[in-house]
Amino acid sequence: MKITRVTVTPIAFRDPPLLNASGIHEPYALRSIIEIESDTGYIGLGESYGDAPALAIQQQLQAQLIGLDPFNLNQLRAIVRATVAAHAPQSIAGAELAPGSHASKAVSNAYSAFEVAFLDLQARSLNVPLVDLLGGAVRDEIPFSAYLFFKYAQHVDSPYQPDTWGEALNEEQIVAQARRMIEAYGFKSIKLKAGTLPPEHEVSCIKALKQAFPGYPLRIDPNGNWSLETSIRMAQLLGDDLQYYEDPTPGLEGMSELHRLTGLPLATNMVVTDFDEFRRSVALDSVQIVLADHHYWGGLRDTQHLAKMCQTFGVGVSMHSNSHLGISLMAMAHVAASVPNLDYACDTHYPWQEPDEEVVKGGKIPIVDGCVKITRAPGLGLELDYEQLAKLNDLYLTCGIRQRDDVKQMQRYKPDWQALKPRF
Amino acid sequence: MKITRVTVTPIAFRDPPLLNASGIHEPYALRSIIEIESDTGYIGLGESYGDAPALAIQQQLQAQLIGLDPFNLNQLRAIVRATVAAHAPQSIAGAELAPGSHASKAVSNAYSAFEVAFLDLQARSLNVPLVDLLGGAVRDEIPFSAYLFFKYAQHVDSPYQPDTWGEALNEEQIVAQARRMIEAYGFKSIKLKAGTLPPEHEVSCIKALKQAFPGYPLRIDPNGNWSLETSIRMAQLLGDDLQYYEDPTPGLEGMSELHRLTGLPLATNMVVTDFDEFRRSVALDSVQIVLADHHYWGGLRDTQHLAKMCQTFGVGVSMHSNSHLGISLMAMAHVAASVPNLDYACDTHYPWQEPDEEVVKGGKIPIVDGCVKITRAPGLGLELDYEQLAKLNDLYLTCGIRQRDDVKQMQRYKPDWQALKPRF
Repeated sequence: MKITRVTVTPIAFRDPPLLNASGIHEPYALRSIIEIESDTGYIGLGESYGDAPALAIQQQLQAQLIGLDPFNLNQLRAIVRATVAAHAPQSIAGAELAPGSHASKAVSNAYSAFEVAFLDLQARSLNVPLVDLLGGAVRDEIPFSAYLFFKYAQHVDSPYQPDTWGEALNEEQIVAQARRMIEAYGFKSIKLKAGTLPPEHEVSCIKALKQAFPGYPLRIDPNGNWSLETSIRMAQLLGDDLQYYEDPTPGLEGMSELHRLTGLPLATNMVVTDFDEFRRSVALDSVQIVLADHHYWGGLRDTQHLAKMCQTFGVGVSMHSNSHLGISLMAMAHVAASVPNLDYACDTHYPWQEPDEEVVKGGKIPIVDGCVKITRAPGLGLELDYEQLAKLNDLYLTCGIRQRDDVKQMQRYKPDWQALKPRF
Repeated sequence: MKITRVTVTPIAFRDPPLLNASGIHEPYALRSIIEIESDTGYIGLGESYGDAPALAIQQQLQAQLIGLDPFNLNQLRAIVRATVAAHAPQSIAGAELAPGSHASKAVSNAYSAFEVAFLDLQARSLNVPLVDLLGGAVRDEIPFSAYLFFKYAQHVDSPYQPDTWGEALNEEQIVAQARRMIEAYGFKSIKLKAGTLPPEHEVSCIKALKQAFPGYPLRIDPNGNWSLETSIRMAQLLGDDLQYYEDPTPGLEGMSELHRLTGLPLATNMVVTDFDEFRRSVALDSVQIVLADHHYWGGLRDTQHLAKMCQTFGVGVSMHSNSHLGISLMAMAHVAASVPNLDYACDTHYPWQEPDEEVVKGGKIPIVDGCVKITRAPGLGLELDYEQLAKLNDLYLTCGIRQRDDVKQMQRYKPDWQALKPRF
């Protein structure tokens, strides 16, 4: 089997004004949709970062993959490595929240984007679900958690109709957001994105969630925006409210010290984002849970390697997400289905995306009882809706955004706002 | 696809009187040959330990795998785990040299045996070489090293005609053995199994090999039979003669201390034999090279996990072997082909097995220029020769050996010989 066509299509879709440690989401999120077609007529799908540097590498790779055997992932990696080396990528300001867009991640990042499509193509051509190539499903319902954000009611300059979620800045609004999300999707655990409002206020929102949803596992994620001192002080306020304490403070050393002082289970998608950092984290006992993300860890197989490494070193496994659509969701679901030691419900931004902005046939993938269900359909079980793809590609072409910049976006609301880390 | 037949056939084949730290090889080595047939008419092959405890578990598993989907490796592992738990295996005396026969390894051991056959069946049914399911080949010629042994000219009580290799107890005989093996197979590196004769004499044989084969990477493997003090003393004599120093002294702590004191690269198949020991070795910096072995590490996929872990923690990868036939050889070759960081030529006992005692069609698999070549044939690329299988099964039934015991065998030569570790 040989690859005869590789198409990388950048897309944009509406994204709500969600607050985070770097600033605020822009009105459109960018992704790329990857198609790999074989001489036998099968198409494998992938979804990855659509920011300019990531996209540039993906597009440089398109022609080089023609003629390749889609089973030869080792060769794919070699080609990606050579391509990245030849086009030394620049680092990206303000992209701390999307570890996959770091320049240092360019190889695993681009490799991941295509690996999923290669595996999907393999599985389709073999007429088996993708999870079967990953060792089979230990579960076919993959739990996700409600992912709450502080948010404004609408974007600056109102580029389109406000979303229906409204403002969420205080305890009552956050509890209402959680209630709506849990009613709609049945989530059984709750994560609050933090690091944006004063820490005591964010902790107070966790307390409100605890009261409103007794027994629900809770997580807070300040995205490294709290100093060690603040993280310790908030830990005292939080007590045992949390299932895990995600990236309160920056750096492997800071996290290590925080764990030593508080004993709390610390999770991360910021200080352990590649295998080298995993090794350093083991030496420092920096984190107790790693949030895997196949988009930057090196695809589905390397996510499995990571999970085995976590099992070996007594580290828990959860899963990270950025704004994404259904192809990413199903890739996450298939690898999560194959990992015995997936100890926690995965993150997903999926409920924040609008129902009319999905590129797979049938529209948005259901989340029921907090779970995404994988089926026995070949590969990821998805087909592209080319009309939708064209629509979101048009949006990409006209939206004016080429690289995520939450800092600059926040300055449109607050001109004197400065990037500061840690802020609190 | 469903499994409709599982057949485990124990076999025996002649094995020369090879000396090692535990004693001496018995006249017959035991293995099991595993066939997994699908309702679509494909057969996957595996080869594993044939010692009684391992065989008992494999046989208990036969019926339980009927109806299973051969893609569902996670379910295979769950069934193996439950079966082993229900039939608590006993530990095995004198089996230190075959880590896969340890009772503590019963799960990964039995799982491995079937995993290879499951993967072979998957690949055959998909009409792709097995390596394609492992990410594709980074090399199609897998280097092996000449594996030298001190040996007697014939077995006690002459159970059959002596092998043609003759006695090898001194420098000249070891050099002659190396020369014949290198001429026949083209090996480019040399390993000497040691720990059996006085250490100074064994080191003197390394010196003789160095002189006879200048530039060849050399390894010595005393199988943990040297005290730390002896290992240090021999390290001084060896200087920089070695590519790596394999298991001179027992225990993770001893190896750690030895490395700290000598700086020599230490390799092992004795102190790092599972993922938990890997973790402990990382903490102690006990070894710099791990000899992988899919027969006890958990099959081909877990061997890939191990290799990734080695890469992550800066540990080299080589490969261990016990006495084996062609199915094991090709399984080793396929996984070795897929591992980018296979840094060293693999071990194999294969040249010690007689040409008329192979169970795959076409007889013994060629080793040319020191390499085993993998092809584009589906799966492992092997078919069973059922006449040969029946012949070696007959040999198993009549040979009288049910569990490897190199200590007892040595006592037939030297009645007052005692198991002692470390002996020197």
